[in-house]
Amino acid sequence: MKSFKISIIGSGRVATQLAKQLEKHSHTIYEVYSRRIENATLLAEQLYDAVAVDSLDFSESEAEIFIIAVADDAVSFVAENIIVPEDSIVAHTSGTLSMRVLFPINASVGVFYPLQTFSKEKAVQFKEIPICVEGNDEYATETLLDLADSLSKKVYQVSSEERALLHIAAVFACNFTNHLLHISQQILAEKDIDFTILEPLVKETIQKAFLISPEKAQTGPAIRKDKKTIEKHLAHLAKDPDKHTVYQVLTEHIMKCFANQKQSK
Amino acid sequence: MKSFKISIIGSGRVATQLAKQLEKHSHTIYEVYSRRIENATLLAEQLYDAVAVDSLDFSESEAEIFIIAVADDAVSFVAENIIVPEDSIVAHTSGTLSMRVLFPINASVGVFYPLQTFSKEKAVQFKEIPICVEGNDEYATETLLDLADSLSKKVYQVSSEERALLHIAAVFACNFTNHLLHISQQILAEKDIDFTILEPLVKETIQKAFLISPEKAQTGPAIRKDKKTIEKHLAHLAKDPDKHTVYQVLTEHIMKCFANQKQSK
Repeated sequence: MKSFKISIIGSGRVATQLAKQLEKHSHTIYEVYSRRIENATLLAEQLYDAVAVDSLDFSESEAEIFIIAVADDAVSFVAENIIVPEDSIVAHTSGTLSMRVLFPINASVGVFYPLQTFSKEKAVQFKEIPICVEGNDEYATETLLDLADSLSKKVYQVSSEERALLHIAAVFACNFTNHLLHISQQILAEKDIDFTILEPLVKETIQKAFLISPEKAQTGPAIRKDKKTIEKHLAHLAKDPDKHTVYQVLTEHIMKCFANQKQSK
Repeated sequence: MKSFKISIIGSGRVATQLAKQLEKHSHTIYEVYSRRIENATLLAEQLYDAVAVDSLDFSESEAEIFIIAVADDAVSFVAENIIVPEDSIVAHTSGTLSMRVLFPINASVGVFYPLQTFSKEKAVQFKEIPICVEGNDEYATETLLDLADSLSKKVYQVSSEERALLHIAAVFACNFTNHLLHISQQILAEKDIDFTILEPLVKETIQKAFLISPEKAQTGPAIRKDKKTIEKHLAHLAKDPDKHTVYQVLTEHIMKCFANQKQSK
């Protein structure tokens, strides 16, 4: 597989994980940029040959690919100020931003979006992380696909429009799902029941959803139209109107979802 | 470990899985009851020495423990009609019903509730399934705890009140969570994106929630108070008012949840 010359714009969680993975797969990191040179240095020191910089003028850089891994609202600033060799590629790593934010740049541009949540506490298996790639020309697309292939088994070519949809879906499937776990933890805390009692059930639920589809895997009082149980639960939640609302809205949505389905059959 | 003589009331999914697991762990199944004898026979034939019956008169039975594994709304019928030897124990397996539904029975009673979702499509690791046990006297409690210990590493003594709470928490953590996956699948279907692209992200989210707690693991536009992204998402969902409501209610609840927390610090 081809080994690329890469510079990383950013020094946060995604920049760090990505830079290390790229090195691990035989690519070379040339520069690490941060507005604060000490942050750039901190990451550069963890890499073999990287140089820390705090200027966005890369006109003399040997890198072929520039990966922007900064907070979403800092990407425009980078796009408007970065100077790169004309035949290079600049890609951002954001799930939410369109490729268009990079159009001010006088080079091929694209997106290199790893669909995963990165944390300091937990290492992730990069080979399993879907990477969503987009390019504004064939050169950018093909090069970024090659780069993604070197890191992951799951590489997808995804347009900005599709990526926006993916992000909404991920908010439901991850951010909201995590919040429901938070609610259930709070409910169990009423009687000092340890939240981990639910771990096998939750993990089985998730596995089943991906195995047979969430539609077929749906269980519980809402889909059974078990009004007695629903009333009991709502009565218990009455003291907490916000949780009561969440329970009610989701229950009604499940009922509606499956009612509509039957009608459309 | 002691080997118990057991009869099973019911022939559905839970009855089947439980009966087989009990045999696997050296207990003996004496009778399998179903209102329809053919269903009882179907299960009894899969067991070593079990006899199929369609009468609830077990006065001559040698079994020490009678496990009721029927639909919730059939438990009262069984409780009001079953006849068992006086020194035996009758337990139901329901997450929602109080132990009290068994008080009409002239024997020790209790609850033997495996906190897991059973399906035909997927075998589960019984050793990892939490079993929640309750008894109306010490004999029932200790015997059912022994029985649970023989099947699982995770045995909990849980009162009817705690079990009711556990069930509400499980509706949030499992039924509602599955429904959010269903919603995200529907959203991705708009552009024919395969739902499994989210699998690594969802699994990582769940693992992280149990590793560092859902409270600490919360990410996404709501907790960031990223109004620009939230507006974008809501605009996209406007064509589907129900999903729009779910998004809005959960986003507001996350914001409120973390706002309250800061105030209380």
